[in-house]
Amino acid sequence: MNENAQDWFTERVDDYFSISYRVEGHLHHSQSPYQTIDVYQTARHGKLLALDGYIMLTERDEFFYHEMLVHIPLFSHREPKRVLVVGGGDGGTVREILLHDAVEKVDMVEIDEEVVKVSRRFFPGLSNKLDDPKVNLVFQDAVEFVKGIEAEYDVVLVDSTDPIGPGEVLFTKDFYGDILNALKPKGILAVQSESPFSLENELNMIYRRLDSVFPYAAIYWAPVPCYPPGMWSFTFCSKDGQKAEIRRPEAAETIEAGSKYYTRDIHQAAFVLPNFMKSLSSKRG
Amino acid sequence: MNENAQDWFTERVDDYFSISYRVEGHLHHSQSPYQTIDVYQTARHGKLLALDGYIMLTERDEFFYHEMLVHIPLFSHREPKRVLVVGGGDGGTVREILLHDAVEKVDMVEIDEEVVKVSRRFFPGLSNKLDDPKVNLVFQDAVEFVKGIEAEYDVVLVDSTDPIGPGEVLFTKDFYGDILNALKPKGILAVQSESPFSLENELNMIYRRLDSVFPYAAIYWAPVPCYPPGMWSFTFCSKDGQKAEIRRPEAAETIEAGSKYYTRDIHQAAFVLPNFMKSLSSKRG
Repeated sequence: MNENAQDWFTERVDDYFSISYRVEGHLHHSQSPYQTIDVYQTARHGKLLALDGYIMLTERDEFFYHEMLVHIPLFSHREPKRVLVVGGGDGGTVREILLHDAVEKVDMVEIDEEVVKVSRRFFPGLSNKLDDPKVNLVFQDAVEFVKGIEAEYDVVLVDSTDPIGPGEVLFTKDFYGDILNALKPKGILAVQSESPFSLENELNMIYRRLDSVFPYAAIYWAPVPCYPPGMWSFTFCSKDGQKAEIRRPEAAETIEAGSKYYTRDIHQAAFVLPNFMKSLSSKRG
Repeated sequence: MNENAQDWFTERVDDYFSISYRVEGHLHHSQSPYQTIDVYQTARHGKLLALDGYIMLTERDEFFYHEMLVHIPLFSHREPKRVLVVGGGDGGTVREILLHDAVEKVDMVEIDEEVVKVSRRFFPGLSNKLDDPKVNLVFQDAVEFVKGIEAEYDVVLVDSTDPIGPGEVLFTKDFYGDILNALKPKGILAVQSESPFSLENELNMIYRRLDSVFPYAAIYWAPVPCYPPGMWSFTFCSKDGQKAEIRRPEAAETIEAGSKYYTRDIHQAAFVLPNFMKSLSSKRG
């Protein structure tokens, strides 16, 4: 074949598996204080963002992850006025949050300002709500940010990288405890919690830590094609012990009309775990 | 890194995307009258079977596909005594079928005897039920086999390759019409119907053809990590217009105790389609 290795971006997922997208250009490379940031123009999947060589999103696939991280917790809260996003520098999470008219203010705490700059330049479809008057961008370590905050947020979303590198501190019991304090009495937390099929130990660790801190924790999942092996988990937690039921059905009907993945039926189905995932939400180590 | 290209098996999914498994050995290569057959020993995913370079299964991942192709239609039938499998040469589908005590006889019609030979040699965990007295192996073109059969089967499963190459004839309206004839009045058909996210046109074509032939057709889905992009569809059809409800709940409870993916709740949830899939089950072209 008449092509070069440079025609493909390969994510070495682990020592055993990799995925590759055909690319037509390497649009950006930089090294921030925290990680390397790369943007590629792929041939079919739109632009691709990689941090430290790991795919964060492709424009074609990102809706799976962002819709499911945001709409499940937001619709499970009766009045999500104040929302905190931890991480989420590309802006996709904030974009989905602002679809909810109930939201009055979003604090987004991202440690790496360079990610936001790159997203503003290359991913306007994700970052275009970051300048909304409801959004307050804070470039700070979220671990420091949440310390000492008491009962301020209705919903907290942890849109982090993996529990290695800069994201590692966002998976500790101490951090989860600080989030619990930062939530109002009926507050809800949702976190991305890794792949149930290739990072099952990480998921089990995350679940057990959250379950030990929050009165209620439940895993849900969705396919996310750009996160190999294509199946991803999230964990929902509530401060008052309530399950993830839809509490604003009319708003959900409205947003469902424009969503690509989320529907009110998917909201329920996402919590139905395949048999092999049931043991991952075991409380035993 | 001190490694060679030979250390990885790469499936070029299409011109835009590929996946690679690290391999420790190329255990088998042959050319049958129909396709090339390769077996690799991967480093983490057990043995891998590829036909014409496309991954059919890895030992680690195959349960997603086989459990979902088999248990949804089999539990939706009150008395699945006679089952026809089209394709399925690796034996995984027959293995799952024989978990159902109600089944008295399985005809498996596979065009390529060489696939069965290779599976018997390298994949005993899949092929070990092919010698069961209930199983009748027929090495023939399934298109010819089903012609003229009237009301003989309770359930037909099409466990085919993609609609290119030898599998193409298994996706025509004529073939689906012959299957309809071969089914008893309460008969059920399930087919693998390609990826809803990368082969969406193929899925829509398959659905529309089945929907035009059968009184009832419905798409369901599951993650299948070894079939990129990791999300796969199946289509359920019934001759009497009935939906895919569990009609033998006690048997389902028993099998669920040993399954890895299938559960009775998953049986329902698998038919909940993400928003972008709803248009794929549109009857308009």
